[in-house]
Amino acid sequence: MLRIALAQINVTVGDLSGNREKMLAYIKKARKQQADIVVFPELSLCGYPPEDLLYKNHFVKDNLKELQKLAKEVSGIAVVIGFVDQDKESLYNAAAVIADGKIRGIYHKESLPNYGVFDEKRYFKEGRKNPMFSFQGIPLGVNICEDIWIKDGVYRKQARQGAKILINLSSSPYDVGKLEQREELLVDCARKNKVFICYVNLVGGQDELVFDGGSLVIDNNGEIIASGKQFEEDLVVVDLDVLPRKVKQKTKRIVIPCEEKTKKVLGKQKARKFSQIERIYKALVLGTRDYVYKNGFHKVVVGLSGGIDSSVVAVIAREAIGKRNVIGITMPSQYSSSGTQADAKKLAKNLGIKILEVPINEIFNVYKSALKKAFLGAKEDVTEENLQARIRGNILMAFSNKFGWLVLTTGNKSELAVGYCTLYGDMSGGFAVIKDVPKTYVYELARLINAQKKNIIPKSILTRAPSAELKEGQKDQDSLPDYKTLDSLIEGYVEDHQSLEKIVKKTKNLKAVKEMIKLIDKSEYKRRQAPPGIKITSRAFGKDWRLPITNKYKEF
Amino acid sequence: MLRIALAQINVTVGDLSGNREKMLAYIKKARKQQADIVVFPELSLCGYPPEDLLYKNHFVKDNLKELQKLAKEVSGIAVVIGFVDQDKESLYNAAAVIADGKIRGIYHKESLPNYGVFDEKRYFKEGRKNPMFSFQGIPLGVNICEDIWIKDGVYRKQARQGAKILINLSSSPYDVGKLEQREELLVDCARKNKVFICYVNLVGGQDELVFDGGSLVIDNNGEIIASGKQFEEDLVVVDLDVLPRKVKQKTKRIVIPCEEKTKKVLGKQKARKFSQIERIYKALVLGTRDYVYKNGFHKVVVGLSGGIDSSVVAVIAREAIGKRNVIGITMPSQYSSSGTQADAKKLAKNLGIKILEVPINEIFNVYKSALKKAFLGAKEDVTEENLQARIRGNILMAFSNKFGWLVLTTGNKSELAVGYCTLYGDMSGGFAVIKDVPKTYVYELARLINAQKKNIIPKSILTRAPSAELKEGQKDQDSLPDYKTLDSLIEGYVEDHQSLEKIVKKTKNLKAVKEMIKLIDKSEYKRRQAPPGIKITSRAFGKDWRLPITNKYKEF
Repeated sequence: MLRIALAQINVTVGDLSGNREKMLAYIKKARKQQADIVVFPELSLCGYPPEDLLYKNHFVKDNLKELQKLAKEVSGIAVVIGFVDQDKESLYNAAAVIADGKIRGIYHKESLPNYGVFDEKRYFKEGRKNPMFSFQGIPLGVNICEDIWIKDGVYRKQARQGAKILINLSSSPYDVGKLEQREELLVDCARKNKVFICYVNLVGGQDELVFDGGSLVIDNNGEIIASGKQFEEDLVVVDLDVLPRKVKQKTKRIVIPCEEKTKKVLGKQKARKFSQIERIYKALVLGTRDYVYKNGFHKVVVGLSGGIDSSVVAVIAREAIGKRNVIGITMPSQYSSSGTQADAKKLAKNLGIKILEVPINEIFNVYKSALKKAFLGAKEDVTEENLQARIRGNILMAFSNKFGWLVLTTGNKSELAVGYCTLYGDMSGGFAVIKDVPKTYVYELARLINAQKKNIIPKSILTRAPSAELKEGQKDQDSLPDYKTLDSLIEGYVEDHQSLEKIVKKTKNLKAVKEMIKLIDKSEYKRRQAPPGIKITSRAFGKDWRLPITNKYKEF
Repeated sequence: MLRIALAQINVTVGDLSGNREKMLAYIKKARKQQADIVVFPELSLCGYPPEDLLYKNHFVKDNLKELQKLAKEVSGIAVVIGFVDQDKESLYNAAAVIADGKIRGIYHKESLPNYGVFDEKRYFKEGRKNPMFSFQGIPLGVNICEDIWIKDGVYRKQARQGAKILINLSSSPYDVGKLEQREELLVDCARKNKVFICYVNLVGGQDELVFDGGSLVIDNNGEIIASGKQFEEDLVVVDLDVLPRKVKQKTKRIVIPCEEKTKKVLGKQKARKFSQIERIYKALVLGTRDYVYKNGFHKVVVGLSGGIDSSVVAVIAREAIGKRNVIGITMPSQYSSSGTQADAKKLAKNLGIKILEVPINEIFNVYKSALKKAFLGAKEDVTEENLQARIRGNILMAFSNKFGWLVLTTGNKSELAVGYCTLYGDMSGGFAVIKDVPKTYVYELARLINAQKKNIIPKSILTRAPSAELKEGQKDQDSLPDYKTLDSLIEGYVEDHQSLEKIVKKTKNLKAVKEMIKLIDKSEYKRRQAPPGIKITSRAFGKDWRLPITNKYKEF
């Protein structure tokens, strides 16, 4: 019987010594639980993704030094960790197997993802170093993330060479459909190859990405026998009922030294499963918390309009960093209704957060008179609407500058897609919490929150027709189709890069679709200047979406 | 004798039919000049780089349709053009050889750059389609851009198979050192392989990239026998003194049908060479012009502070789109000196552009009183400085919204590197003309401009100590080292990803270097929200620079 521990930890990109220390703490924990092997996620020593830090040769060298330091402290347990390896010419996304103070073997990732948010071919060379390991006579294969997603990838070779256990180190970012995909894939792989799979996944937020943990151990019949928590650090310890096996003479194996431990059989460790909308909520909370703390902030400020977007963001912020660290600011104008203003205050009261009020009318009027001469003869239009949004952006940024609070931007994906938002206005801020959340999901989140937290969001916020309140009687639906239609269109056009023809088949409304596609295309310049925000869909406006601004492609 | 024409054209990304029409016009021109073959740049049918447009299958199909349409119209000349090819599973960066209404052969690019600004492995598969062509009995090889930059790349194979002429289709972006690199490489390649090289390069601006043209024809002794204009469209027509040659029986060749033309020997066509600083100026003018027009703007607005950055940007804008289309705005505050204000007006007069004045003091004061209560007890600090910059940003954006003028941002690379600029303030705008120009180069540009244009920039602008004028008596050098030191440090840290140790060896000043590196690291969040601007150095803050915001890597 082999006891394996999966350490799904929350590391920070670039924090080489901090990450090493966290690993040592987890190695200690695992040893205490009599684990034979403890496994850490992909590139967990340097954090994932390190991006262009990898272009700094001194960064790579420092990562190797930390690996050597860590190796020296390992005893009484085997450790598998992800790091950046280097030979004369190239870098490799690598895993080291360490035991008794020494690195026993190194694996180089073969399949490098270079699509979506991934740029691994920018940095790494495809690996050709694929040793077979043996632990207590049991043949083991080690591979990394994408390696197991590729049809007939390196795992097939490892299984054919007799591996009874496959260890996969992952840093797989969350999106709404990922969990089911991942489970299905791994279960299928275990069953077809008759191997145990130990899949350890990173947890934590890194700029626009959230890694959701949820590590898995699957037996050689394809049954999930253990799982890690989602969106939290965890140490999954599990006993694998697997016997030593002779492999062909030809296969060279690296024997990992070990001491046989006497241990009582463990109970099965399985984490609670969440619903899809709960997972989205948890991703947003974790992503926000990690962005705030990992960047050295302590408090955040949110502009509260009394609308649903800012309300949901305020709830997430409170959940992430506590009510004492969230400040709400209302910035009423002549177009703000008494309803929304009262709701903003009520929400702040329900949340127990501080709220400040800075009215913008006077500032707005001074701007208008300063511009009067230059704008003589021109009608009021979107210029004046944007001006109000920008005054509010300035006020939030003034609080940020004065007190060191991070501004959380409150715009949703539906707005950002069609450009129904003001650059340097409501788009201002350091982190855009619900940037990738379509409006229909924002409503679902609000309902979830209210179900779990006794209607903390005033009901009128959920029922009132959405409005930017930048001119008299304005409603979102004066300019946009209903959000269900819009979000379905965005899913097709943005997430799936579908053609007009295909989208119209689904949404039926040709005229609206054409109008919205025009708006989406035209708004590229705005998105380019948007703050980062948490990816929750299969394609977010971030590293996932690299459309040219200068672009004359037209389908119609 | 074979007459070849290199059509270095300025296409627009996504404008498939427009690009095809431009090609047809150039094919006609080339035929008129009795050319046997006319060659267009890499991916010129769809524009370069098409980025995630390539994820739209309908885009790829439309590009193929345009290729077929174009092929049908070709007669009396052979045409080589760059397009996106597709098989069942993959896309290829391809070149088609067309003659007499038909595609005769297709080449797939083998070496795909995936570093710096390039993401070709995100989209394309490495090519394995490499046919040998024969034209009038002369063996020809076709390859694409990076193919010829790789040691022992596909061109070696083509030469070994007997090619006497290599045609290279490029879309190679400009930077300060590129021209010399390119010439050296191609000359060396021609000489070593005893081949003629016909190198055709794209011209024009595309978001942050400028393609500089400068196509080259090199004979089989390594002598440059023709060159295209830099930063302008051009048709280089040249006679190659090369005789038919027998190649080994085994080598399969695609024979390109042709009619022998009687023609008089042409004179040599060589374009004027520019100095390095002239090339930078030309790159900025072309990049600005193309961004403005290709995005459907007609006029631009520039905030004129009386400083050197905005002055140089205004000159570039006028050169790019004409004085009637550039509007200057001065926005004086209590901290503006009479000197800078007078200089701004004098500059506008010298340029013959319209200038408007919108003072910001009153607006600034109203903000301060609106924030008075919340800021009670806090000292004036960078908050108030940023507020002024943001008011100015808002005013420029108001003009943009009201009249449809594009705001040109005037910040330079030195500022952006260390964050000596205000997000949503002076960083506001659609296009940042000198974003990648270090301050020392800005001065060089100003001197070049004044030498060529009779001191159009008032001399006092060049001699006054730089200041943001956001508080009493402020000077840049109160917060920053002298710009020569700073720019040298930025070159090391940003362009070359050098370590602290290496930089200090060059710049000597350890304390200042440490301070500046901290500032550069800390300012990543600002750069992420900066508008696009023209790349002129070997590494610009754009697609070239992908550093995480959340990043705890510290060298000291």
